Amino acid sequence: MASGAFIATMRPMKERAVCQHFQRAAELVGKRWNPQVVHALHSGVTRFSDIRDAIPDLSDHVLSQRLKELEAAGIIQRTVTPSTPVCISYQLTEPGEGLAKVMGGLASWAERWADAPADA
Amino acid sequence: MASGAFIATMRPMKERAVCQHFQRAAELVGKRWNPQVVHALHSGVTRFSDIRDAIPDLSDHVLSQRLKELEAAGIIQRTVTPSTPVCISYQLTEPGEGLAKVMGGLASWAERWADAPADA
Repeated sequence: MASGAFIATMRPMKERAVCQHFQRAAELVGKRWNPQVVHALHSGVTRFSDIRDAIPDLSDHVLSQRLKELEAAGIIQRTVTPSTPVCISYQLTEPGEGLAKVMGGLASWAERWADAPADA
Repeated sequence: MASGAFIATMRPMKERAVCQHFQRAAELVGKRWNPQVVHALHSGVTRFSDIRDAIPDLSDHVLSQRLKELEAAGIIQRTVTPSTPVCISYQLTEPGEGLAKVMGGLASWAERWADAPADA
């Protein structure tokens, strides 16, 4: 295949990948509790019980689900240290830190416009 | 009520308002087609048919729904000009422009990490 044709084929594929990645990211942001979990990790909390304690009204079951989903999406990393007792910790990955910043921008926006009258 | 007690009462109310506003905003971002609609308006498109043409695969019915929801949330403004024929246009409000910027940040993030291997 000539390189021009190759690039013409690759560009839509790359665009589609970005669109799909955007859609998945937007859904992650929009899913209840995810921003709070990412925010807790971003502020340095690493253990399951500490994350749960940092987020009022979040159950163990739902937190466990969210951590698994965020790990599958490459946003957080789960580390098991084979000590006694076994120590499990969670950290944001590099993409996860980037997503935390985007969520921070959304939080600033929400704070700026929380009193706006237009929320019908 | 003493002013200290008043402030102590108001602060949690303000925090709750911000949290609720954040949750609503996150859900707006996460709802399919909303980012594309906001992006189209942000890039200067104003008419229903032009917004639809700017977004492949978006039906009239769904676009109509999204525009109503975004208007109710104070993100866009619908203007009816009583000409012949009647002209209806859509613009982002000031909060809407702010939200467009947050979505732009998310789009940059998606572009940066679209090829990341961790999407299991």
